[in-house]
Amino acid sequence: MIKRALISVSDKTGIVDFARDLAELGIEILSTGGTAKLLRDAGIKAIDVADVTGFPECLDGRVKTLHPVIHGGILAIRDREEHQKTLEELKITTIDLVVINLYPFKETILKEGVTLEEAIENIDIGGPTMLRSAAKNHKFVTVVTDPEDYKKVVEEIKVQADTTLKTRYDLALKVFQHTSHYDALIASYLGKDKDILRETLTLTYEKVQDLRYGENPHQQAAFYREVGPQRGTLVEGIQLQGKELSFNNINDANGALELLKEFDEPTVVAIKHTNPCGVASGINIDEAYSKAFEADPLSIFGGIVASNDVIGEKTAERMKDVFLEVIIAPDFTKEALEIFSEKQNLRLIKLPHIKARGEKALDIKKVGGGILVQDTNKALIEELKVVTEAKPTKSQLEDLIFAFKIVKHVKSNAIVLVKDKQTLAVGPGQTSRIWALKNAIKNSQHILRGSVLASDAFFPFSDCVEEAAKEGITTIIQPGGSLKDKESIQACNEKGISMVFTGMRHFKH
Amino acid sequence: MIKRALISVSDKTGIVDFARDLAELGIEILSTGGTAKLLRDAGIKAIDVADVTGFPECLDGRVKTLHPVIHGGILAIRDREEHQKTLEELKITTIDLVVINLYPFKETILKEGVTLEEAIENIDIGGPTMLRSAAKNHKFVTVVTDPEDYKKVVEEIKVQADTTLKTRYDLALKVFQHTSHYDALIASYLGKDKDILRETLTLTYEKVQDLRYGENPHQQAAFYREVGPQRGTLVEGIQLQGKELSFNNINDANGALELLKEFDEPTVVAIKHTNPCGVASGINIDEAYSKAFEADPLSIFGGIVASNDVIGEKTAERMKDVFLEVIIAPDFTKEALEIFSEKQNLRLIKLPHIKARGEKALDIKKVGGGILVQDTNKALIEELKVVTEAKPTKSQLEDLIFAFKIVKHVKSNAIVLVKDKQTLAVGPGQTSRIWALKNAIKNSQHILRGSVLASDAFFPFSDCVEEAAKEGITTIIQPGGSLKDKESIQACNEKGISMVFTGMRHFKH
Repeated sequence: MIKRALISVSDKTGIVDFARDLAELGIEILSTGGTAKLLRDAGIKAIDVADVTGFPECLDGRVKTLHPVIHGGILAIRDREEHQKTLEELKITTIDLVVINLYPFKETILKEGVTLEEAIENIDIGGPTMLRSAAKNHKFVTVVTDPEDYKKVVEEIKVQADTTLKTRYDLALKVFQHTSHYDALIASYLGKDKDILRETLTLTYEKVQDLRYGENPHQQAAFYREVGPQRGTLVEGIQLQGKELSFNNINDANGALELLKEFDEPTVVAIKHTNPCGVASGINIDEAYSKAFEADPLSIFGGIVASNDVIGEKTAERMKDVFLEVIIAPDFTKEALEIFSEKQNLRLIKLPHIKARGEKALDIKKVGGGILVQDTNKALIEELKVVTEAKPTKSQLEDLIFAFKIVKHVKSNAIVLVKDKQTLAVGPGQTSRIWALKNAIKNSQHILRGSVLASDAFFPFSDCVEEAAKEGITTIIQPGGSLKDKESIQACNEKGISMVFTGMRHFKH
Repeated sequence: MIKRALISVSDKTGIVDFARDLAELGIEILSTGGTAKLLRDAGIKAIDVADVTGFPECLDGRVKTLHPVIHGGILAIRDREEHQKTLEELKITTIDLVVINLYPFKETILKEGVTLEEAIENIDIGGPTMLRSAAKNHKFVTVVTDPEDYKKVVEEIKVQADTTLKTRYDLALKVFQHTSHYDALIASYLGKDKDILRETLTLTYEKVQDLRYGENPHQQAAFYREVGPQRGTLVEGIQLQGKELSFNNINDANGALELLKEFDEPTVVAIKHTNPCGVASGINIDEAYSKAFEADPLSIFGGIVASNDVIGEKTAERMKDVFLEVIIAPDFTKEALEIFSEKQNLRLIKLPHIKARGEKALDIKKVGGGILVQDTNKALIEELKVVTEAKPTKSQLEDLIFAFKIVKHVKSNAIVLVKDKQTLAVGPGQTSRIWALKNAIKNSQHILRGSVLASDAFFPFSDCVEEAAKEGITTIIQPGGSLKDKESIQACNEKGISMVFTGMRHFKH
């Protein structure tokens, strides 16, 4: 039976109504500072915690509820005789309902220009302690930290003068989810300039949305965000029209964005099944889109397109005729939006800071029983070194770097063929390098003569050079570093092909 | 200057020596229960916290340190005059060093047959509160929760009678990493039968090992495990010989294990760049390995092999002649180990419960700014339905299911060709389905006549059937569900091919 409640909340939402309901149910209310004042102002009787403990609130509120009379009242095991005896001896009365929410640490650190001192002052000590005490003793004590739960608790008390054990268990679980989230945010804030690969790694996320399903219809799924602004990521995207994003949409769109961020000039990326199928730069987005489309007009069907500049009328007209799942851009002109409005299923995502590149970030791969963690692959080239007799021209070199930026984002083993800042072929995800090249060549819808070739890892043999030569490919970029580099270089020299080493491999799986 | 320390530890490692060092440096020691006794038995003077607070330890130790005299002593801001005045008025003396570690919640829940009550009794309330108080006030207070840090703290005190602010900051960070980990474990334990896709998701891991590098040499990386037994995962693997596992090894090995768990009969899986390149079942492992190797003798070079039964002498002899990165098996015979000992770089992983399939588990995909979460793909077939005039024979049906198990684990779009429980071709990771099929056919080193075809998703057009017919492929398995299923069925009927729908798609990216 709930006789006494302790209420001390930072977020005052709904608290007056809740407290009034409790008071009307005959429950005595203890409270502190601002909450007590608010309740009294609303005509609800509230006993000061300080009157119960006989100890003043002190140190600017740093110490209010950290007292054995309070925690004994929460933690005592109600059906253990000794505990009851102790309570009597020490004149402690039980507290059966604890209603607490915490200092707004998250909101504080999200404020612009917040100082370390402000952040630290907003680390709640008393609150989590009461929450955890009550949650530990949930067999007897009800603990509420989310205003959403006020109603349910009142309803149950009305019926049976107490909550059900199941409700108390669920509320206790919610407490530990909340305190672990709270402390993970503090650790993440204090540790933001520190080594990420520490001994214990606690990662915390907030749900953006439940998804209709996961990678496949029989899998449940949701999309979660990290706390903080997350500039230039999908989390910041504003959906202007279209169906809800699916799991695979988000995954593909993310791939499109990561690749797009490699480029400063007007560029369009088309993605299908997490691999790029068309990438091109142009003097403007319209040209870039036309080239990206022409790169592979078949695979773009049902794909995702990301543009790093505003999409206008002309480009929208072209895009309208293709079945696309999602289009992402920093913005769309009014005319473009009008054109797209005819295709109500098409998802349009506005991402204002689309070129923003995140700082230090973690990449995670889930494996059975754990995770692989690495820092995200932000680099491109260690050192450019021409290793052949033939040298690439300036415009070939530009195409080589363009191609290498793309191949970095193709699943390994990967080969990309490029001409005039347009992909002519993409060969993703093969178990052998020569197959990746042969597939790229075979699936290309273009004449490859004069194109450049990029490989995400070194050539293990000279067979890729021979194959490239047959197609009239004139220049190659690859990391180098194979035991047989010499054979590949010699093959290039025989065929008059130039080759550049980057010193940096880009496997992606 | 550190004058007073509060010591209360559950893990007593190194505490006596540390306390003695502190005492010798003239630091007064407060302590509780078992720790106080241990120190006194070692001849170190320790004042009972109860003597300081004037309040007895009570409720079976549930309430010991939750007292304003303790927390005021920790939390007071040393250079704020009012705080100093309050301390004097309330007769509180400051505590400058807090040495606490927590009740062994993790160790408790890992014990076989632990009850909810035992687990809950091991949720520490006073400990985290003191750690968090001290960490909040780290500008003035030193907090130590890891015995590894005792030495450093003593060294610093010896030099300057205090620790440095940098050390105190780092120790405070460690506290919040620890408390968030601690509460995340509690939440995970209490919530183990609850919905996984909750509003806030806090995931916590412990480091298994730092890795030489990540997916690429310029990326830093580490391998982390979930807390708990994790049966049948790599976390449980015992490395018997060879170089340290790399990031890509672990990722590939995980792919091999997930696929291997689809099979009960003796089966071998070879993986390269996260895609299977050879999979076969046989009457025993030796036959299975021979078939998996013959499936694609080129791609297996540098690959990872997993076997679901013990590897013996004969198989080891065969494997020895191939360059493999890793071999995983439930065990290796003495003779096999002797053969492999000649190849000291080859990594051998013994995984006793290799067939164990985990329960409810989370799959995570990292995207910029957040994560996609879904439950792992544990299902295979919704309902088998023959949709053509021709029906597969019993042995064809076995091959179809065998192939469908494999295609589920190939990157999309994926096609797998199988005959007699041996892959004849794997076509992974294409942006178009017909390309996946054409690549599979082109890269196969086998005669495909009479083989069966599996597709991870439906055929959008009838072109895959036409292509399959040209190769003499006799039967097909795929989810079905395309608007144009009828065209594919009709094409099958014209060519005399049988086709089975599973009703379940298996995209994997």
